[in-house]
Amino acid sequence: MLSNHLQNGIESDNLLWSRVPESDDTSTDDITLLNSHRDGDGGVNSLDYEVIENYAYREEQAHRGKLYVGYYVAVKWFFSLLIGIGTGLAAVFINLSVENFAGWKFALTFAIIQKSYFAGFIVYLLINLVLVFSSAYIITQFAPAAAGSGIPEIKGYLNGIDIPGTLLFRTLIGKIFGSIGSVGGGLALGKEGPLVHTGACIASLLGQGGSTKYHLNSRWPQLFKSDRDRRDLVTCGCAAGVAAAFRAPVGGVLFALEEVTSWWRSQLMWRVFFTSAIVAVVVRTAMGWCKSGICGHFGGGGFIIWDVSDGQDDYYFKELLPMAVIGVIGGLLGALFNQLTLYMTSWRRNSLHKKGNRVKIIEACIISCITSAISFGLPLLRKCSPCPESVPDSGIECPRPPGMYGNYVNFFCKTDNEYNDLATIFFNTQDDAIRNLFSAKTMREFSAQSLLTFLAMFYTLAVVTFGTAVPAGQFVPGIMIGSTYGRLVGMFVVRFYKKLNIEEGTYALLGAASFLGGSMRMTVSLCVIMVEITNNLKLLPLIMLVLLISKAVGDAFNEGLYEVQARLKGIPLLESRPKYHMRQMIAKEACQSQKVISLPRVIRVADVASILGSNKHNGFPVIDHTRSGETLVIGLVLRSHLLVLLQSKVDFQHSPLPCDPSARNIRHSFSEFAKPVSSKGLCIEDIHLTSDDLEMYIDLAPFLNPSPYVVPEDMSLTKVYNLFRQLGLRHLFVVPRPSRVIGLITRKDLLIEENGESSAVELQQSTSVRGRYSETATRMDAARPLLDDLLG
Amino acid sequence: MLSNHLQNGIESDNLLWSRVPESDDTSTDDITLLNSHRDGDGGVNSLDYEVIENYAYREEQAHRGKLYVGYYVAVKWFFSLLIGIGTGLAAVFINLSVENFAGWKFALTFAIIQKSYFAGFIVYLLINLVLVFSSAYIITQFAPAAAGSGIPEIKGYLNGIDIPGTLLFRTLIGKIFGSIGSVGGGLALGKEGPLVHTGACIASLLGQGGSTKYHLNSRWPQLFKSDRDRRDLVTCGCAAGVAAAFRAPVGGVLFALEEVTSWWRSQLMWRVFFTSAIVAVVVRTAMGWCKSGICGHFGGGGFIIWDVSDGQDDYYFKELLPMAVIGVIGGLLGALFNQLTLYMTSWRRNSLHKKGNRVKIIEACIISCITSAISFGLPLLRKCSPCPESVPDSGIECPRPPGMYGNYVNFFCKTDNEYNDLATIFFNTQDDAIRNLFSAKTMREFSAQSLLTFLAMFYTLAVVTFGTAVPAGQFVPGIMIGSTYGRLVGMFVVRFYKKLNIEEGTYALLGAASFLGGSMRMTVSLCVIMVEITNNLKLLPLIMLVLLISKAVGDAFNEGLYEVQARLKGIPLLESRPKYHMRQMIAKEACQSQKVISLPRVIRVADVASILGSNKHNGFPVIDHTRSGETLVIGLVLRSHLLVLLQSKVDFQHSPLPCDPSARNIRHSFSEFAKPVSSKGLCIEDIHLTSDDLEMYIDLAPFLNPSPYVVPEDMSLTKVYNLFRQLGLRHLFVVPRPSRVIGLITRKDLLIEENGESSAVELQQSTSVRGRYSETATRMDAARPLLDDLLG
Repeated sequence: MLSNHLQNGIESDNLLWSRVPESDDTSTDDITLLNSHRDGDGGVNSLDYEVIENYAYREEQAHRGKLYVGYYVAVKWFFSLLIGIGTGLAAVFINLSVENFAGWKFALTFAIIQKSYFAGFIVYLLINLVLVFSSAYIITQFAPAAAGSGIPEIKGYLNGIDIPGTLLFRTLIGKIFGSIGSVGGGLALGKEGPLVHTGACIASLLGQGGSTKYHLNSRWPQLFKSDRDRRDLVTCGCAAGVAAAFRAPVGGVLFALEEVTSWWRSQLMWRVFFTSAIVAVVVRTAMGWCKSGICGHFGGGGFIIWDVSDGQDDYYFKELLPMAVIGVIGGLLGALFNQLTLYMTSWRRNSLHKKGNRVKIIEACIISCITSAISFGLPLLRKCSPCPESVPDSGIECPRPPGMYGNYVNFFCKTDNEYNDLATIFFNTQDDAIRNLFSAKTMREFSAQSLLTFLAMFYTLAVVTFGTAVPAGQFVPGIMIGSTYGRLVGMFVVRFYKKLNIEEGTYALLGAASFLGGSMRMTVSLCVIMVEITNNLKLLPLIMLVLLISKAVGDAFNEGLYEVQARLKGIPLLESRPKYHMRQMIAKEACQSQKVISLPRVIRVADVASILGSNKHNGFPVIDHTRSGETLVIGLVLRSHLLVLLQSKVDFQHSPLPCDPSARNIRHSFSEFAKPVSSKGLCIEDIHLTSDDLEMYIDLAPFLNPSPYVVPEDMSLTKVYNLFRQLGLRHLFVVPRPSRVIGLITRKDLLIEENGESSAVELQQSTSVRGRYSETATRMDAARPLLDDLLG
Repeated sequence: MLSNHLQNGIESDNLLWSRVPESDDTSTDDITLLNSHRDGDGGVNSLDYEVIENYAYREEQAHRGKLYVGYYVAVKWFFSLLIGIGTGLAAVFINLSVENFAGWKFALTFAIIQKSYFAGFIVYLLINLVLVFSSAYIITQFAPAAAGSGIPEIKGYLNGIDIPGTLLFRTLIGKIFGSIGSVGGGLALGKEGPLVHTGACIASLLGQGGSTKYHLNSRWPQLFKSDRDRRDLVTCGCAAGVAAAFRAPVGGVLFALEEVTSWWRSQLMWRVFFTSAIVAVVVRTAMGWCKSGICGHFGGGGFIIWDVSDGQDDYYFKELLPMAVIGVIGGLLGALFNQLTLYMTSWRRNSLHKKGNRVKIIEACIISCITSAISFGLPLLRKCSPCPESVPDSGIECPRPPGMYGNYVNFFCKTDNEYNDLATIFFNTQDDAIRNLFSAKTMREFSAQSLLTFLAMFYTLAVVTFGTAVPAGQFVPGIMIGSTYGRLVGMFVVRFYKKLNIEEGTYALLGAASFLGGSMRMTVSLCVIMVEITNNLKLLPLIMLVLLISKAVGDAFNEGLYEVQARLKGIPLLESRPKYHMRQMIAKEACQSQKVISLPRVIRVADVASILGSNKHNGFPVIDHTRSGETLVIGLVLRSHLLVLLQSKVDFQHSPLPCDPSARNIRHSFSEFAKPVSSKGLCIEDIHLTSDDLEMYIDLAPFLNPSPYVVPEDMSLTKVYNLFRQLGLRHLFVVPRPSRVIGLITRKDLLIEENGESSAVELQQSTSVRGRYSETATRMDAARPLLDDLLG
């Protein structure tokens, strides 16, 4: 089947492609994969962050003047602006609808309660049920990838893995309307995770120039063809999501840095910073616009969601101990939360969700009924307590006038001058419940007993709700759980240190930080987010220490929430540090599992088709012969590029001799080789070749990556891992030890300036400035930095 | 002179070492360098961040159990604690002395002024002169490397360049006492830069186990032998410096991230975060301890240095325009500041400072006299204005009671109920001047005319003082300049938008942010620092937009302040992005300038000595012969390691045959090869070899780096730059194209778990979890993360 020309030209010892696909060596795994690949749902694929400098790329680079680079950079900043505005508006829309749904629900229920509690409960339960049902329905039928928070999938995308469907237009719509239903329906989950996913979807769709499927695309922004550009835009989207959810712009930038991305450059930080500043202004304007009340319940509170700046403004040395206790509790409960949700979700995936979508919807509805029953029923069992004599100018009314927002909820109380402390947390919107828990100057507002009941109930509900087929964020539930036990500890401390001016609300804030630290294992970003949502800077050192303690305690048990979920979903994240045991291994041992399949420079179309069909490799080394007959590796060609060539058929030639690339004009633009966002792309089954097509040849030289990174065979795997991970590679050649060294590159060689003359001082030169630091160098530098620095 | 064995074994075409040193090809530069190297001041050297996995390293790694790694990590966290405490105490000491010196100075001057202004002026001038003289004297005689802010040198150190003397014990002492003199002496400079340098010195000395020169070292902490560990500790030191200077812990972390370091890992972020939290607590406790007044003027104000939280708490859309104007002014003045200081410093270096230390001291004293004259004399020309009727509970007294801190300074005024607005800014400590400029509810306190005079005068003073032989920070002068024109714009806005409730102080704050953004080109860290020093979160979006505008405007003209200074001092920083023109170059072209000098595996001592003497290369490829006679590159050996071998002489052998490394015991521990902090280290002149030493041989195999990173010869220079810069390399081999590919490493191959079984799902596997996700995998993960995650 294979022509002689091919057979002898290639060293045969490690070549297996010559045998037909059914050969015994494809392990069982390959077969299952092959089918899974064929039925189109397409497994997890790696993204290409390496710039493939093939001929088409060099052609385009050659006639790209400085002007083009300026235009390219300007468009990137413009896209950051669009992402900021888009995510800001999406967040305002979600908040608007969630707060209005919740507002109407509680107003209606309170009205009916005046007549009969039972009728009130039924109405409350039904509204929640309808909302949750609609959310589950949208997710299961319309956008399955929009379930859960979406942060593990985005973390995978930004680590170089393309999970199908994560960033589709359908997912965006599903996420927005799904989260309105799930959060509005009073489930024990938050809207922050979904907003991060929404931001990422908006960014990716903008980058791809709209969604082709819904012919919403336009030629113009088809600029960002490489995965590398899209990765930067998605990072901006995530930061915008958090900035919009918490009105915490700097917290959003740091969340993107610490939790989501795998590579960080200072240019990226400035662009992400710009996006979140835009989001803050958009949300701020929307709230100002709603101040006049035209947006219903939305926009009531100030810009800072839970403003406790009037709380305790100083801390005493003695408080470090109770604060450490909160840190430890946070670490333990956080790690437990990660482990429980891990078991819940893996049980659901392996048994429940296998039975199809209907089961998922029913499950979501059952959970909604249970949540409504608990949040309505439990406060009924709680007897009311009398209102505290109101502190003069603290602006706190007790009990809260019906239908209004605020503290001290009068629920199932005999007289008017009483309030139900359990209802103040449970039978309330999430934002209000947290505001009440954080509130200052409200000593002993909540009894220890009701705090404990709420903690146990809400914790279980949060674990159970996590992983259902609805969009779910974990920030707000985390803050609710943390602030409850934080307030509990605060009550003991107040009773213990009588004379010190200590606020229970402060300990609720520290509790919230400790649980989030214990569960998500973030430090700097969480710390800044907590400060930005409470406007209380004085407690910063305490929040930092609580976060560090809870993170250390949590790390002793398991990984962070998002890492655990990513591992559960089979997303192969490459962590930033190599595994410990890699020190004893060398490069050759790591690539034993896969046989290398090399291609000759000029290859018959039939051979290409049979190779692509017979295995699932994505990269093939290309080998050529020098005049002296030795073999030489001339580069790496990707499966996706080969498929583009086979489909276009323009490059087929009759002669088996290599053609001179410069002679004929290039028929492909670089963008043709780029993959659409969803990782479907072409597969070998879509290619139809006639018999005489099969007989023709292709010269691969213009389409391969001429210089992929290489490592010598006996380099330690740790160093190989660092190279692969730091540069975000997809393929790496393992080559035999070099026979000679042509040159040695040091720092000095890389400091050559534009005009070739090495402006940097001779490396050994003492620190005094050389006279030659000519005037021209400074003026020339001055002109260039605009482009050089802003260069995307 | 060279044995036959050597001559034929090595391909001669690119070898030059065989010829004696006086050969013509060493360009003039080499000769000058050779001398500069000889006279010991040693030019700028590259640091070794690459782990040299030679035999000694492998031996030590082999018998290092998990326990050792745990101990190693624990010591690292303990050192972060020590750095936090050390820097915190140093900052408290500096602040304590500066505030007390300034306090006594003003108290004494005010007392004498009652009698005669002239006597008061003389006393004021003399005190300043003595302080500045002492500072200049310490710097020039005792610690020359402590001049200026030190941030460019540290930026160089963390980019992989070891500038002699930057992190010595002498520099630390010089910096602390020098900055007390220069800041206390009323010069137009700040204490923030010096504190960053102090933090870095403390970290580096701790890492090196104390300073050998002052026999303050102890065996025990000699743990951190590699430059890589020391780099992490120095990063903690910088963050601690900013956290201590501004009491801005999170701002300190971000400053280290955005401005100073070149490589960032999440483990490093948590340790830096921990250090700055410790600093915050240490400074907080010291201030609490001083509250009782025993520390004189120190600790008067609250924890937040310039608390303007009672200022304008909201902004109107209309204010975006004046805010943009402030951004542009900041960008222009900032860029001008960088350019002027560049000319000043290069003029000084090339002419003034060449004339020796005495000139430097005289120059500092002259500047001190001019500053005192201006800050005392100018307010005299200003007629006093009547005190505004005091706003009820604003706590502002007018005029300020003598000898006290605060606003409205009564200086050279006829009646008591008047204040001198120019003196309120000029004739005051820097902290108070800024507090007055930021103050809210003090409408039209400063007349436009005095603000303009102060701006012009202070700006010139700041430019002139920058680069003198005293420790100098640029943050506080930047804030002073920025808040002045910010307040000016604020005054127009207040007059223009009559009905809006706008505070001039707010615009002073935005002005300060804009100048720092325009000069230092930082965004996120500056934004967080501004929020942390003013506790005014509401203005965050405005601060962000001002910073972005001023940075964009500034970038159009020149680079940031620290980059310009680093370039001026000849510190060859490798920026994170490759230069634009590198796309058209390939690896071979970059290493043309230096001829490669290879060594055979077994080499005569005489040859080693002559090679090391004849050139200044720091790395030499080592070549060996396979049984079939082909040459093979077996690794890279460093000059510093060769010198250690020559000095110890234990490895000399009589036979020219390679010896079996495992047979004989290893006589060197890994730490022997580590370089002391100061880049002096060994040089060839220190080695004394007898004639029969010269005749012996050394087998280099056990001491070389067996697998340095390699790049094919025709790889584009951009990709080579990325590899070199991202991995922080010192040497990179350029090798001919590989003849064959042994294997291809992909993401899947690097996901192998401890037990060799690839726990990650097959890459092509669809996202549903494979049943095989066994229980053991989770439990096994649970046990390992503590070590793996905390692994240094």
